[in-house]
Amino acid sequence: MTFDIEKVRADFPILSRQVNDKPLVYLDSGASAQKPRQVIDAITRAYEGEYANVHRGLHYLSNLATDNYERVRATIARFLNVPHEDELIFTSGSTEGINLVSYGWAAPRLQAGDEIVLSVLEHHANIVPWHFLRERQGVVLKWVEPEPDGSLPPEKVLAAVGPKTKLIAVTHMSNVTGTIVDVGAIARGTDVPVLVDGSQAAVHMPVDLKSLGVDFYCITGHKLYGPSGSGAIWISRDRQAEMRPFMGGGDMIKTVSRDAVVYADPPLKFEAGTPGIVNQIGLGAALEYLMDLGMDNVAAYERGLRDYARDRLRSLNWLQVQGDAPDKGAIFSMTMEGAHAHDISTILDKRGIAVRAGSHCAMPLMDFYGITASARASFAMYNTPAEVDALVEGLIFCRELFG
Amino acid sequence: MTFDIEKVRADFPILSRQVNDKPLVYLDSGASAQKPRQVIDAITRAYEGEYANVHRGLHYLSNLATDNYERVRATIARFLNVPHEDELIFTSGSTEGINLVSYGWAAPRLQAGDEIVLSVLEHHANIVPWHFLRERQGVVLKWVEPEPDGSLPPEKVLAAVGPKTKLIAVTHMSNVTGTIVDVGAIARGTDVPVLVDGSQAAVHMPVDLKSLGVDFYCITGHKLYGPSGSGAIWISRDRQAEMRPFMGGGDMIKTVSRDAVVYADPPLKFEAGTPGIVNQIGLGAALEYLMDLGMDNVAAYERGLRDYARDRLRSLNWLQVQGDAPDKGAIFSMTMEGAHAHDISTILDKRGIAVRAGSHCAMPLMDFYGITASARASFAMYNTPAEVDALVEGLIFCRELFG
Repeated sequence: MTFDIEKVRADFPILSRQVNDKPLVYLDSGASAQKPRQVIDAITRAYEGEYANVHRGLHYLSNLATDNYERVRATIARFLNVPHEDELIFTSGSTEGINLVSYGWAAPRLQAGDEIVLSVLEHHANIVPWHFLRERQGVVLKWVEPEPDGSLPPEKVLAAVGPKTKLIAVTHMSNVTGTIVDVGAIARGTDVPVLVDGSQAAVHMPVDLKSLGVDFYCITGHKLYGPSGSGAIWISRDRQAEMRPFMGGGDMIKTVSRDAVVYADPPLKFEAGTPGIVNQIGLGAALEYLMDLGMDNVAAYERGLRDYARDRLRSLNWLQVQGDAPDKGAIFSMTMEGAHAHDISTILDKRGIAVRAGSHCAMPLMDFYGITASARASFAMYNTPAEVDALVEGLIFCRELFG
Repeated sequence: MTFDIEKVRADFPILSRQVNDKPLVYLDSGASAQKPRQVIDAITRAYEGEYANVHRGLHYLSNLATDNYERVRATIARFLNVPHEDELIFTSGSTEGINLVSYGWAAPRLQAGDEIVLSVLEHHANIVPWHFLRERQGVVLKWVEPEPDGSLPPEKVLAAVGPKTKLIAVTHMSNVTGTIVDVGAIARGTDVPVLVDGSQAAVHMPVDLKSLGVDFYCITGHKLYGPSGSGAIWISRDRQAEMRPFMGGGDMIKTVSRDAVVYADPPLKFEAGTPGIVNQIGLGAALEYLMDLGMDNVAAYERGLRDYARDRLRSLNWLQVQGDAPDKGAIFSMTMEGAHAHDISTILDKRGIAVRAGSHCAMPLMDFYGITASARASFAMYNTPAEVDALVEGLIFCRELFG
């Protein structure tokens, strides 16, 4: 099928609203994406007529809700081409997923002096859980810097791996520069387990976990056009077998007595308590929506947007863009002499253009570029070349004000 | 105002549906409650027109979403009469809340041999996190049994407190017997910190944290007529000051560098990553709905339901009801000789009546009563005396089949 941008835009109710009396130009999908009608309807349908708690009931609504909820595991498996469905663990998002690995896999295994290799591109979600291990048990963080253009050669990551390296934690796509990392090449180059933060990548390109060969891969629903509090992490059976549970509660046990607990088999072992039932059902609708469009089509469309935006932004010789790797997503971090990022965001906002200003939860990368904040325009499949033009005109207006 | 049951029922779309060609009689609210139109509409409104990520944006939609989201903290504070709004931490539910306390407060403080006092009434969510501490660091669990009628005298809990007791973890209302525990009397009787699982109690009666004097109090949104993945835990400032962070990620830091992290002030310190934005907005709508009805009115109405159900169930002399404390919520756990709980549930389901069968995530309490499973009818404010009658007729039908 062809990618019909007008049809896609029409599916997202919020895109037709005005902001500050201007049509909304939403360029903040890297922080969180908007939701199509199909997702909102799935949520409404669930609450209006198909809701109960899952797993533990025997009555009609509980069975129906369980079917609707558990079916999402198969949907995610198709979306990521996961080998075994039971390797998918539902989470509230990437932050919970990475903390699950930190607490459930790394904390009981890593000793003082053991190393975790991570890149300077990482989002705080893929940094702070490892800092915990540094603070609490003396694990050493080994940082790999990107090239000045933001690219991260796999061989540079592999060169940092030593005999004490127990984990490589790396993003699949930077949320600041858009850099795409060849995580498959990293995994092929070492026996050290590889955790991949797929929060951005899975939104913008096809992901094939069968071929990547990594050990942990997390996605976050709210960036995938899905609801708040939805997400999943894929963990290979081998790594799951090495893990202890993270959160304790209902549903993750076989038996509980006063003296002992017997834990459930994965994935339930890692899913404590009443889960985000309707959130995950909404995520299922979002992924079905994306698969109907075709992730190849989404990626091709966004490459076009990226190229157009890159060309137009390059023409602004007073604008600094952090990171310009040839293979990158349509995310642009920008600074301008004389104008603070927050001012840029505020002025663009008056024109209806939503961009984020700040450190984008990536302070080590900000340090690398020698800045404290940037304005970031992050495009999604529902954005248009006309919105690139609006951004560029807005930036020119900023330049005239501050330049 | 008076409590208008027909008006309340009309607000819950699912209650007008049929199940197995019979009108739905939903008696499984103890597992999860249905959602009023006002909550569903709040979710739709947020996604259709007011959505962006919170806290880190400067643009219009981000500010709007942040206002809508942060306002819920004040709503919860009013609902629970919380002294200081910043003592409320958003969670995905009670399970995450109690694990936050286990990992953030207890794990770094408790030594081998230190004791946690907990009651046999507890839900697994308030058991398994403490078993982790037993398994991992030699903490001792001291169990307090209820009376045969399910009541839990505060003095019995206090009698279990010794010099090595570092925490008391107790429910405010049993999800199996409906027992209401006088947690205020427990807190007044000791200096040991008290954690209260308010998952059930906050749904059915007014809770006043200013007067209770406990240290930790968690609620779970999906039982409170709110969305999946919503909730909060109140933690007193004194206890918060003793805590280290639980999950690491964005939003819970001030600064992150390669060598160090400086954490944000509470409550953000304990809220890592993009939160359940719209879930919490929906919870806010649910609590506003409850406060408009008036929790005193809700509690009075449910007491009437409880008394009627208790009388009618008592008249079935072949039915065993586990727990019959004078002061209890409208929750009834039941067994019948010759009929397995699962059979009871299945047969009632054919009549449109949803009750849960199993151990109700409370295996130690099942052990206490010498059973492995029960059928549980848990009433909520939208249930009616006619639904009590339907349950009783259904039970009589079961008895005729199996008796």
